[in-house]
Amino acid sequence: MYSNHEESYRIEKDFLGEISMPKDAYYGIHTQRAAENFSISNKSTNLHLIHAIVVVKKAAAMTHLKLGNLSPTIANAIIATCNEILQGALSDQFILDPLQGGAGTSTHMNVNEVITNRALELLGHDKGNYQIIHPLHHVNLSQSTNDVYPTALRIAAIRLLRPLSEACAELQNSLQLKENRYEHTIKLARTQLMDALPMMVGQSFGAYAQAIARDRWRLYKVEERLRQINIGGTAIGTGMNASLKYIYTITDILQDITELGLARSEFPMDITQNMDVFVEVSGLLKSAATNLFKVASDLRLLNSGPKGGIGEITLPSVQVGSSIMSGKVNPVMAEMVCQMAMKVMSNDYAVTLASMNGQLELNAFTPLITDALLESLEIMTKAIVLFKEKCIDNIVVNEEVCKKHLSESCAIATALVHHIGHDYASELVKKAQEESKDIVTVLKEEKILSEEDIEKILDPYEITKPGIPGI
Amino acid sequence: MYSNHEESYRIEKDFLGEISMPKDAYYGIHTQRAAENFSISNKSTNLHLIHAIVVVKKAAAMTHLKLGNLSPTIANAIIATCNEILQGALSDQFILDPLQGGAGTSTHMNVNEVITNRALELLGHDKGNYQIIHPLHHVNLSQSTNDVYPTALRIAAIRLLRPLSEACAELQNSLQLKENRYEHTIKLARTQLMDALPMMVGQSFGAYAQAIARDRWRLYKVEERLRQINIGGTAIGTGMNASLKYIYTITDILQDITELGLARSEFPMDITQNMDVFVEVSGLLKSAATNLFKVASDLRLLNSGPKGGIGEITLPSVQVGSSIMSGKVNPVMAEMVCQMAMKVMSNDYAVTLASMNGQLELNAFTPLITDALLESLEIMTKAIVLFKEKCIDNIVVNEEVCKKHLSESCAIATALVHHIGHDYASELVKKAQEESKDIVTVLKEEKILSEEDIEKILDPYEITKPGIPGI
Amino acid sequence: MYSNHEESYRIEKDFLGEISMPKDAYYGIHTQRAAENFSISNKSTNLHLIHAIVVVKKAAAMTHLKLGNLSPTIANAIIATCNEILQGALSDQFILDPLQGGAGTSTHMNVNEVITNRALELLGHDKGNYQIIHPLHHVNLSQSTNDVYPTALRIAAIRLLRPLSEACAELQNSLQLKENRYEHTIKLARTQLMDALPMMVGQSFGAYAQAIARDRWRLYKVEERLRQINIGGTAIGTGMNASLKYIYTITDILQDITELGLARSEFPMDITQNMDVFVEVSGLLKSAATNLFKVASDLRLLNSGPKGGIGEITLPSVQVGSSIMSGKVNPVMAEMVCQMAMKVMSNDYAVTLASMNGQLELNAFTPLITDALLESLEIMTKAIVLFKEKCIDNIVVNEEVCKKHLSESCAIATALVHHIGHDYASELVKKAQEESKDIVTVLKEEKILSEEDIEKILDPYEITKPGIPGI
Amino acid sequence: MYSNHEESYRIEKDFLGEISMPKDAYYGIHTQRAAENFSISNKSTNLHLIHAIVVVKKAAAMTHLKLGNLSPTIANAIIATCNEILQGALSDQFILDPLQGGAGTSTHMNVNEVITNRALELLGHDKGNYQIIHPLHHVNLSQSTNDVYPTALRIAAIRLLRPLSEACAELQNSLQLKENRYEHTIKLARTQLMDALPMMVGQSFGAYAQAIARDRWRLYKVEERLRQINIGGTAIGTGMNASLKYIYTITDILQDITELGLARSEFPMDITQNMDVFVEVSGLLKSAATNLFKVASDLRLLNSGPKGGIGEITLPSVQVGSSIMSGKVNPVMAEMVCQMAMKVMSNDYAVTLASMNGQLELNAFTPLITDALLESLEIMTKAIVLFKEKCIDNIVVNEEVCKKHLSESCAIATALVHHIGHDYASELVKKAQEESKDIVTVLKEEKILSEEDIEKILDPYEITKPGIPGI
Repeated sequence: MYSNHEESYRIEKDFLGEISMPKDAYYGIHTQRAAENFSISNKSTNLHLIHAIVVVKKAAAMTHLKLGNLSPTIANAIIATCNEILQGALSDQFILDPLQGGAGTSTHMNVNEVITNRALELLGHDKGNYQIIHPLHHVNLSQSTNDVYPTALRIAAIRLLRPLSEACAELQNSLQLKENRYEHTIKLARTQLMDALPMMVGQSFGAYAQAIARDRWRLYKVEERLRQINIGGTAIGTGMNASLKYIYTITDILQDITELGLARSEFPMDITQNMDVFVEVSGLLKSAATNLFKVASDLRLLNSGPKGGIGEITLPSVQVGSSIMSGKVNPVMAEMVCQMAMKVMSNDYAVTLASMNGQLELNAFTPLITDALLESLEIMTKAIVLFKEKCIDNIVVNEEVCKKHLSESCAIATALVHHIGHDYASELVKKAQEESKDIVTVLKEEKILSEEDIEKILDPYEITKPGIPGI
Repeated sequence: MYSNHEESYRIEKDFLGEISMPKDAYYGIHTQRAAENFSISNKSTNLHLIHAIVVVKKAAAMTHLKLGNLSPTIANAIIATCNEILQGALSDQFILDPLQGGAGTSTHMNVNEVITNRALELLGHDKGNYQIIHPLHHVNLSQSTNDVYPTALRIAAIRLLRPLSEACAELQNSLQLKENRYEHTIKLARTQLMDALPMMVGQSFGAYAQAIARDRWRLYKVEERLRQINIGGTAIGTGMNASLKYIYTITDILQDITELGLARSEFPMDITQNMDVFVEVSGLLKSAATNLFKVASDLRLLNSGPKGGIGEITLPSVQVGSSIMSGKVNPVMAEMVCQMAMKVMSNDYAVTLASMNGQLELNAFTPLITDALLESLEIMTKAIVLFKEKCIDNIVVNEEVCKKHLSESCAIATALVHHIGHDYASELVKKAQEESKDIVTVLKEEKILSEEDIEKILDPYEITKPGIPGI
Repeated sequence: MYSNHEESYRIEKDFLGEISMPKDAYYGIHTQRAAENFSISNKSTNLHLIHAIVVVKKAAAMTHLKLGNLSPTIANAIIATCNEILQGALSDQFILDPLQGGAGTSTHMNVNEVITNRALELLGHDKGNYQIIHPLHHVNLSQSTNDVYPTALRIAAIRLLRPLSEACAELQNSLQLKENRYEHTIKLARTQLMDALPMMVGQSFGAYAQAIARDRWRLYKVEERLRQINIGGTAIGTGMNASLKYIYTITDILQDITELGLARSEFPMDITQNMDVFVEVSGLLKSAATNLFKVASDLRLLNSGPKGGIGEITLPSVQVGSSIMSGKVNPVMAEMVCQMAMKVMSNDYAVTLASMNGQLELNAFTPLITDALLESLEIMTKAIVLFKEKCIDNIVVNEEVCKKHLSESCAIATALVHHIGHDYASELVKKAQEESKDIVTVLKEEKILSEEDIEKILDPYEITKPGIPGI
Repeated sequence: MYSNHEESYRIEKDFLGEISMPKDAYYGIHTQRAAENFSISNKSTNLHLIHAIVVVKKAAAMTHLKLGNLSPTIANAIIATCNEILQGALSDQFILDPLQGGAGTSTHMNVNEVITNRALELLGHDKGNYQIIHPLHHVNLSQSTNDVYPTALRIAAIRLLRPLSEACAELQNSLQLKENRYEHTIKLARTQLMDALPMMVGQSFGAYAQAIARDRWRLYKVEERLRQINIGGTAIGTGMNASLKYIYTITDILQDITELGLARSEFPMDITQNMDVFVEVSGLLKSAATNLFKVASDLRLLNSGPKGGIGEITLPSVQVGSSIMSGKVNPVMAEMVCQMAMKVMSNDYAVTLASMNGQLELNAFTPLITDALLESLEIMTKAIVLFKEKCIDNIVVNEEVCKKHLSESCAIATALVHHIGHDYASELVKKAQEESKDIVTVLKEEKILSEEDIEKILDPYEITKPGIPGI
């Protein structure tokens, strides 16, 4: 037993004492303690963040190699390890709960420890032999959680923003194809869900496309705000333990290896403690979420029925709808988009709460900000891609139903206002509805306009354009 | 000019210095300073809170009169003034912004000062002559903002909860009248907005009534949680400067004059600093808001059209709907209810944020809790009363439309499952929809069931009840 | 290649067509399609929900066995499979994203399919041989997603509420041990973070204990609301395809096998479409979250420093605090609790949004409600258990620091009010602060009270109790 | 009595029937009905919105005058009335509840009616004589609520954004004056509230100034997004009943009279139905709110005590703090800012909920969006102005306290890491804390560095700058 223990465990220590660790764990004592302290959510830290931290670690090692602060052996082992992880290795070693206390130090130390132990291994040493390579003295040299973590979060967020912006562009294109396809298909517009005026089916897709275009633009532009990084600010932004040469060099190297246009903050203490940029980005995701919820909800309405609802469009059937009802197909892609949108909104709440509760030189709740923001970016992107491919691209418009709704309604009556006045026109609508006649019939009975005029004034196609009908 | 100034102003002082006050203001220096510090919202503190504070002041004066701590002259003048205010007097003297800093001290002092100056006036003295009656030594004797204010907030909240619970009862009754009225009117049910099964119109009103009944019950029950008061706890709940005799007596007197079943908290320090009870109440208002939003949204859907929507009900016309479209009538009462519901939800957010951010022995943000919670209680009550009277009571069900939607749909097909299996039943539905036939026609074409069986199995009235159709 | 394909895949079909499936998947075509439609969040459906659905499936099979609706062979195979899953088997077969569209049908079908294929296997048949056992005709007999899913959600929620309520009880006990331990340790109370009055350290733990006791009580009581189930209501609550005998029997059996006091809803259509009960439960979790955030934030404040903060307590050191700063230890357990609380608040937002947006006979967004609510229940329970064990149990009070803060402050000055008046007492405080003297020194200089009186009036221990000091 | 009634009332009618109106009301039947339908909140519609609607009305009248669509008599009477209202007249005539149903039609009609009746009066006619001037045919010619209201909301929002951006600039300046004033005053930085490193007091003000500068910039830039207006789109954005000439002219005139750079939307149907721009603006207000909450909370922390807290700054005394505690002064301006911030966050929730729930060609909930957004803009501006003037401008830094906290802490120990390693440095900190010694003493006892080196390495002023101390 004892010898077995010796074989499967190793001992690590910190200033709080010693613990025994699983022998083949690449992570170390800090991670082990944190795992015991924070396991509440069955989730682990977002891998996009982990990889972005690894990018910073690699840049730091490259910097120290260049400046001669680390020996080539150690620096190169660290860099090689970073490259391995960035290619997907060791992802099961990043085990910590996203809701960890400690402002991200635990996830940061998890990365430092995994890099250290893998680098030790690459150099032929045992894991835990921190005399050779030390998680703090070497892997973390001139760094602090408080500059590494926010820098990495910015890198991860930018990397996720780009495909999101592209997904918006694809969705916009798909909507605009429908706009063009149905530019002459007439239908009934509703305001407050009540019959309103004639419009073109294409126009409704166009209005959605415009909204998504705005989101795309916002998400494209906001990247700028994320490019300012505080690396080199170390613990509180003053740069303690980081030389100016190091600060300039690592910024250049990060620019090179990420190709993201990153720039050194002029006042790193500011972005070490203030999280408003993430509230801004999350707020824009929330704007996009309101648009996506609106579009998806509209499609659910227009697809409703097919007999007991509006039924003007048919969303593609992607799966059977019911475990009991025969032949039922539901608008599941649109429902997924709605749920994603509500989830993004609730994540925005988390980002806001966490950001407002920063105190003095640090925000202890950056792990929550990270988890919520990166999740929103990911789920929104994936949901948009699926929504486009499995729903929007293949919407069918039921042109006959569209026409029927329009012709049965009194939507064209407003065209009469210029000719017979509001009050009279309203009376006619009331009469039509009470007597279940259409408005043209009622108008003819009134014999106040010639049939020619009626036809000219009430041409629904004309009514979909600016101008006073009949003039 | 100068003499004029002397005539229109009086001087008051506190340990920060002197200021000149409008001579006829009943409020004093604290209120004046606070008005200059906090005017941001164009609103003033909720009058329900003011009156509840006045009730506490009255009870304190009655207590001190009984215990001999205040002279009968002064105590009676204070009591008389409280009675005047409770009957509606001087309401323009409570001028402070609801978003004031200071944990409610300013509104509390506003009340102390107004009572003092009006009591002075009643006794023939000049306003500001605090040698005779002092806002702190007399009106506030043995009291602190930190016990008066939370006690008053509980009183105000209970007083607003009762009419809300009654309004829910009225709404429930109105819905149940519709439930009974339409218990045999058949219609089409929708799940995920898609044609589902037959049901009775009455059942849908019944489901709404059940939800509202639950809200009514919750709001009735939660009153209990508000009955514990910390009066006598003074500044931090320890009771400093309040004798035990005073504490017991004022609790009894408050019970008497409010008739609300108030009880002394066993641990006043707790409810001086912890605001969770208001989060609980606000959370229940939010539950009710989700139900009301759902009911009002459903009514908007069912009323939609009349031609281009579902159109199965007609909500009463309470005002003209459009400044441009002829004869348009909108579901404005339901829309108002939806907005009220969303406002209550956003107020719940404010209550939550304010409550979570209490610190140590006090929550500095009780004014925001107060403003948001009392507003929610008021608007929900008024909106429900109007909703019932101007909307629910006079809904008309368009029975022919209901029948038509049902008969055109494939909703009864699920009744076939037991007889022909899921897969076959689904195929028939698909066929019916593709060929625009009704399900009975398709079924007859298939010749697998006798016409008699078909009639028996597909009787829509039977399908609205538990059991396997046709057996 | 082709033969290989034949070996690793099987074909399944539904009314939308055929697909090929991995041959050893226990799930079937519905799950496969849904997996392709909804993979957005890298998470899978909460296993507590899956297990609760399996419990319902087992109860249905037992019911049908009893009533003779299923052959013993099939029923027993289903029951045996359910037992296996409930013991932990096949958990990797429940693969669907929690943010799925379809109101939960996909997760429900996932369960139906896994049970079916494992039951087939138990009976020696191939997976996919639905002629023998069919996911709908047998495993789902007389059931619908719309009654199974909400019933299961209630079961899962109750099962998670109980350990949460117990965790609250444990936390309350731990706080009360501190209350007793420090009942005579004097300290300074702060209101609005400013020096206020003397109090006992024990009282502050007592106030926390009271708040947590209220949460415990609420979470214990709310279970009742979750006990009403709509099983047997099938698709819309009317009970279509479920006999009354079945409905009564399955309710009894569910009561027996869950031991949760479940009861049949009198109006199943109501709880099929209205989700307010989950908003209520989530709202109470939010109340608890505000209390936990407050307690954890207070502890962080009181632990702050140790030199540059309040430093009146020391939270246990559970891990090293910094990757750069030497010897730093942070209040990580309290920070984790704060983040959990904010996450619960944001989940409550999701629950509210999803619940308000139900439409007509169903709420399409129950999967989001489920995911958010169950997550909140789980993380709150686990965080409380860890908070108690690794933080509260081992708090150390620095009694000397407590005393020093009190004695240096003017907190006892309020005791003078009864003797020298508010205005004079305030002047003395101002003087003491300006001249950096303590209040007793200043008072003695004023020579208005005898030293004996001063001692009696300003005894800080007396000031922590009700009554007027010195009388 | 009856004749009295004749004298005090007038009759108005619409297609729903007749009602009697107070004779001197400037508003008409629509307003009267709406007042009865929607009175729930004791508030009336934001006057900034009313005035912006009046601006649109004026521009429309000027347009129609120019194009010859209205007679000069009528057009000029309308314009004159608009000018009166814009100068402050008749503000008591805009009586409607902000939470009104109807997508803003009621407030819009309120304005149409008041203008009409005042214009009639100016021309010597009786109120209600709509044969002469008609609220719809003249005042509302070519307009709809659905283009007037969103256009007006944008105008009102831009007008409120500018002073907000200026207020941010003033606040930033005030903070930067403190930054300069205290650039050499050393203090202790805290991360996670624990003693961290030395920094300059000026740096902490600088970090706040940077955050506010970002807010200022965002709020300045977002104005662009609001400049696109849909006037001329009428009911659904198609421009029905509005000639192209009218559309171009009114846009030009609105540009002229507002001087706000407004531009015609290329796709008015989009911004008639999509409200994401308001979610975006509100989201940026929320970002600013998180920064303001953070700054105000930090100041409350730093001001805490004065003896039992951090006490490193003293916020100006603006009012007496307590109704019971002697000499107490509270950080009320900072508390007001915190409450404002939380209110803005809750308003953002309302804006989001209302925006996501638009349907098809309109959002019925623009009144809630309006009320919440404009309130946020107003209260934030006013709160910032007061915060700057009554708090930030007059903060006093207690330099001795700052120094004391730093020197008693182990904050400078991290400077040793490069010289003695992390582990050793941490051990020394632990020792210093356990033995209540300062770090220099402990270090000297260890005799591992010369006194000269110690002095050089541990110079706290050096530690506040980038670089490795002692090298």
